[in-house]
Amino acid sequence: MDKNLHALFDPENIAIVGASSNPLKAGYTILENLKSIGYPKKIFPVNKSEKELSGLPCYEKLSLIPEKVELVVLITPSQMIFDVMDDLAQRMEEKGDVKVIVCAAANYGETKTEEGIARQNYLMETAKKYHIRVVGPNCIGIIDNINRVDTTFVETLLPKESRGKKGGISFISQSGAVAASILMMGASQPAPISMNKFISIGNMADVDFIDLLEYFEQDADTKVIGLYLEGYPEGRKLMETMARIARKKPIVVLKVGRSEIGAKAANSHTGSLAGADAVYDGAFRQFGIIRVDTIEELLDTLQAFDQCVIPKGSRIFILSQAGGPGIYCTDGFVAQKNLAFPLVSQETKDRMTVCLPDMANVCSPEGYADITAAANVKHHVESLKIVLEDDAVDGVIFITVVPTFLPQKELAEELVKLLKEKGYGTNKPVYICIMAGNYVWQAREILEKNGIRTFDTPVDCVTVASHMVAYQQFLQSRGGEEK
Amino acid sequence: MDKNLHALFDPENIAIVGASSNPLKAGYTILENLKSIGYPKKIFPVNKSEKELSGLPCYEKLSLIPEKVELVVLITPSQMIFDVMDDLAQRMEEKGDVKVIVCAAANYGETKTEEGIARQNYLMETAKKYHIRVVGPNCIGIIDNINRVDTTFVETLLPKESRGKKGGISFISQSGAVAASILMMGASQPAPISMNKFISIGNMADVDFIDLLEYFEQDADTKVIGLYLEGYPEGRKLMETMARIARKKPIVVLKVGRSEIGAKAANSHTGSLAGADAVYDGAFRQFGIIRVDTIEELLDTLQAFDQCVIPKGSRIFILSQAGGPGIYCTDGFVAQKNLAFPLVSQETKDRMTVCLPDMANVCSPEGYADITAAANVKHHVESLKIVLEDDAVDGVIFITVVPTFLPQKELAEELVKLLKEKGYGTNKPVYICIMAGNYVWQAREILEKNGIRTFDTPVDCVTVASHMVAYQQFLQSRGGEEK
Repeated sequence: MDKNLHALFDPENIAIVGASSNPLKAGYTILENLKSIGYPKKIFPVNKSEKELSGLPCYEKLSLIPEKVELVVLITPSQMIFDVMDDLAQRMEEKGDVKVIVCAAANYGETKTEEGIARQNYLMETAKKYHIRVVGPNCIGIIDNINRVDTTFVETLLPKESRGKKGGISFISQSGAVAASILMMGASQPAPISMNKFISIGNMADVDFIDLLEYFEQDADTKVIGLYLEGYPEGRKLMETMARIARKKPIVVLKVGRSEIGAKAANSHTGSLAGADAVYDGAFRQFGIIRVDTIEELLDTLQAFDQCVIPKGSRIFILSQAGGPGIYCTDGFVAQKNLAFPLVSQETKDRMTVCLPDMANVCSPEGYADITAAANVKHHVESLKIVLEDDAVDGVIFITVVPTFLPQKELAEELVKLLKEKGYGTNKPVYICIMAGNYVWQAREILEKNGIRTFDTPVDCVTVASHMVAYQQFLQSRGGEEK
Repeated sequence: MDKNLHALFDPENIAIVGASSNPLKAGYTILENLKSIGYPKKIFPVNKSEKELSGLPCYEKLSLIPEKVELVVLITPSQMIFDVMDDLAQRMEEKGDVKVIVCAAANYGETKTEEGIARQNYLMETAKKYHIRVVGPNCIGIIDNINRVDTTFVETLLPKESRGKKGGISFISQSGAVAASILMMGASQPAPISMNKFISIGNMADVDFIDLLEYFEQDADTKVIGLYLEGYPEGRKLMETMARIARKKPIVVLKVGRSEIGAKAANSHTGSLAGADAVYDGAFRQFGIIRVDTIEELLDTLQAFDQCVIPKGSRIFILSQAGGPGIYCTDGFVAQKNLAFPLVSQETKDRMTVCLPDMANVCSPEGYADITAAANVKHHVESLKIVLEDDAVDGVIFITVVPTFLPQKELAEELVKLLKEKGYGTNKPVYICIMAGNYVWQAREILEKNGIRTFDTPVDCVTVASHMVAYQQFLQSRGGEEK
């Protein structure tokens, strides 16, 4: 593991060059985010015009900070890069302490102008001379929720108590805007998502996909890896790295530039050739890498791999409290070619029939039950338990539309008891959809805060179940052999 | 137009048989919803055990209400239907005023039990004898936001000020749970959705799809029609009705039972044969009926038809403030086979280049621009204006990821000025995606409260644009000829 890269996630003190007192500046938000996440070591704001920022003493230059600094965040206007790097060089000659730069500022190589390229070259020459690793430029920063580092300038409205929580997802984004959107969408979930590590990779002047993938490969806290990918100059090398890691940890990729025109737009954007999409697509399939189509699917799939156990087989039962959503779910289920309806035992059917309201539909079709709007909390939880106890069932999609007369808080609490306290969710995944909107937020929040994943719609459950089954099938076949 | 059916939406006084003081009962919520929407005429709760409910005098029986009653809502336990209908018969002999029943209670024909069928038959025999139309049984009720009628028992958390607002969407659902979910999802949007008419059709013992479609065909306030459809006994007749209406008003359908297993589940549910899905699918295509795959897509498409002008052609410009989301959008755009990138004039390109930040990508590829994260509010609004002024452009997908330093309120207000006050949104549609999550809620709320549609993601914009272009193409070709 690259020792300098380690300092990106667990640095001994951080300097923010370009920290600001103006709330409309990125240099303000970075400082506030870093304080808000509860970074336990020292933060040194650097700004010529200020004596103090947010209660911290402010330094005129990097070279004037007396204590050790391992991580430097750059958010100064790009034309100042020459002065900043000269000053950093002076510091390195004297102290030699800086290990990583996160260059959040834009207006470098991505502009494809002579000036932009010159700025990026100057940044990189100085960094290389002193063996400093560089993330960016033209990125929105990095987050490590375990070591409580946040160098991003994204305001997410994430409540303070949700910051710095452990999670098993590590994520790399080639687009700052997609990265920011993911943070903002994640913060808006019933229980805000908290990733392990999060990196906006920007221009990849130095630290790139392969560096980070190899880091995550070794990182015991990373359970699943997510990528937003536009293109990479050494496609084969990237794919070999991903293929090796995918046998150990699931990798979920949102790869754009599918279409020729999309690829052209990608080229205009990060300057990287998107590469023939069909080649990527074939390699993803071959190497068990999970490709998703949308940002929502990316988030759902990453969180499911983090929180749900991987099903041992493809037989997923649909347990619905309502006919319409159940049928809707069934259509989506059948469209996923790799899912199967389990044939549960007669005993299971009898137990369900006894437990459920008279009007309930038990297993017509097989592997499907509609417990009806007459179902109370006990009917919900008891039927789920019965289904999970059947050996023919590898997992359950559980759908309920909470009506006026079903107490949602009690339902959520009873589900937590079954799945967490009694451990019914620990050897088979349960994909829960409680419909719909703000009205059911309370139930979803209770479940998610207890580490039980919920989904917006029945189709989202199906999509994620299919991805997890596909990954299991990969491990059992080809992936297993090659280990 | 059926005069009795008219009384469903604009009744002279409403009786609620089974109204309740218990907040966990449907009979409580129906009364509260009807009061909350501001129904302007008289409400008569009927309940043997109460003297007064929610400040209104309560009646022991329907037949004892001295004033005129045109609409009766039934939410009593189903075994009481015989007494209730006998009492209604007595009222009809004396007063002959009731025109419509909404039977929200379940446990009728859908149970396929002898008792359930007998109850439904008794309900229908009495109703037919007195020429009373019946909605349901086994439905969640109806809403008319124009005449301020709400007989549903769905709690949505819809703020009171959002109730009773006019909208151009009329919607029919064959599933109560899907209907409830749509109401709850609609209430959770930045500006809660307010439909014109909304009907949960239940068992269709009497009032069915065709009755309502024909009603909406004549209803000047219905601009677009939505259906959630499981199956219908007279498929050909339904299709002929839809085909006729689709030439005048767009019809958007979520039809389930696509798969054989889904169709089997549908049959278990409403007892209606789903019919070979391929037949439905072919007919939808032939007759310009818009088929959607998900509930979210249904809501997005209905709202877009209500609020956005239909594009005159297929050339939709993608204007993005960020590369990643722009490329992501482009991929989705190309996957929709009926959308084309416009070739704007050199003048338009020059105007954009002058107006935008240096780093902006103007038309590489054609029909696409990335105004970059350096774009301020003026850059956003001015570039949108320039693109809309180009004759080669039939519509615009406008994407922005609001960062810390872009004041979202100002952006939204300036967009309202351009699209509403200056009328730039009145002859070409603009599909707006402001990313992402709760952080951008303020901007989306301002836009939506001003009648400007916003979407969760770039891909949602693309999907809706494709549906609207397809409908225009249908009208211009086959649909136009047959008029």
